[in-house]
Amino acid sequence: MEKPAETIHSINNLLARRWSPRSFASQPVEPEKLQSIFEAARWAASSFNEQPWRFILATQQNPEQFQTALSCLVEANQAWASNAPVLILTLTTDRFSRNDNPNRCALHDLGLATANLSIQALELGLFVHHMAGINISKIKTIYNIPDNVTPQTAIALGYPDLAENLPEDWMRDSEKAPRTRNPFSHFIFENSYDHPSHLFNK
Amino acid sequence: MEKPAETIHSINNLLARRWSPRSFASQPVEPEKLQSIFEAARWAASSFNEQPWRFILATQQNPEQFQTALSCLVEANQAWASNAPVLILTLTTDRFSRNDNPNRCALHDLGLATANLSIQALELGLFVHHMAGINISKIKTIYNIPDNVTPQTAIALGYPDLAENLPEDWMRDSEKAPRTRNPFSHFIFENSYDHPSHLFNK
Repeated sequence: MEKPAETIHSINNLLARRWSPRSFASQPVEPEKLQSIFEAARWAASSFNEQPWRFILATQQNPEQFQTALSCLVEANQAWASNAPVLILTLTTDRFSRNDNPNRCALHDLGLATANLSIQALELGLFVHHMAGINISKIKTIYNIPDNVTPQTAIALGYPDLAENLPEDWMRDSEKAPRTRNPFSHFIFENSYDHPSHLFNK
Repeated sequence: MEKPAETIHSINNLLARRWSPRSFASQPVEPEKLQSIFEAARWAASSFNEQPWRFILATQQNPEQFQTALSCLVEANQAWASNAPVLILTLTTDRFSRNDNPNRCALHDLGLATANLSIQALELGLFVHHMAGINISKIKTIYNIPDNVTPQTAIALGYPDLAENLPEDWMRDSEKAPRTRNPFSHFIFENSYDHPSHLFNK
């Protein structure tokens, strides 16, 4: 299902087409596509080139591996993510390797990497759904996460499927709902916070 | 200056070409390009569609505005960012507007937005350099930042220029240095942390 952003100003087609479906086809994701997707994440920018992103990958082709990853999501996410062919758990290393100081921007830089991942996925016909709803302490235990590494999000990845195949009303409604965003005046300022930039009309 | 990523697996051309120069031409950025760049940021994904990103925009066309933003960077960044035609300060709203709960993923979602911004910039011939080195308390004071909003990064934006025009040796060296990244085995795992995924050879 496609629902491109209704933009005021034109943007790159991949950026406009990116959205977060819940309905995924069972079709597996080709290993070479996964390789390109993580290659894109790998080349994201990061503070001092620390590359604080870490990923744990699970595919339906290994059912036990997949069920373990699935069990680390909150129940509302498990209900639809169980159909995605690929789950990815994301983590950050929280200190700089060069001096052990805290890396204040690790989570931002993970976002740069997961954005690249999403764009490369879409280029290959695949969609991504980021999830904040994870069981952090369970991930730490199950996957032997060291101190100074923090589980952050999960990502469902796969080919999109019909909204009608989702198991619950609220999911089908959400899948078909229009995409909405704040007006520019809400988030781009100049000179002072809450003073909208003159470059944007709305 | 172009220095595309030396990828093992092929990726989208914009993702491969993105890098973080310090040498920017004085040429102004056209307002319609700024509009498209922030339109791209606007359509990023975010947890509960909170859109926790906020931006303060300053251009050289308003010298006082620009110098104020420049003064909020650490000195090492001011030394080169003073030549960029556009500076952007980024911030996050730290709580969900719907229930005032903390938004654990706000900084991640800012990263999704600034990645979109970078890709759209590159599509329009513009480059971006993210900076973690900012004076957070100064930004809070100068721009009247409310509680529960946190300054996070700064971004220099503009058309690229020659490395030779940079003022210091270390900057010119860095500008010409090859881009490097960790091998896949360093950051993509399966089943357990530090157990590399079998889908990646190195």
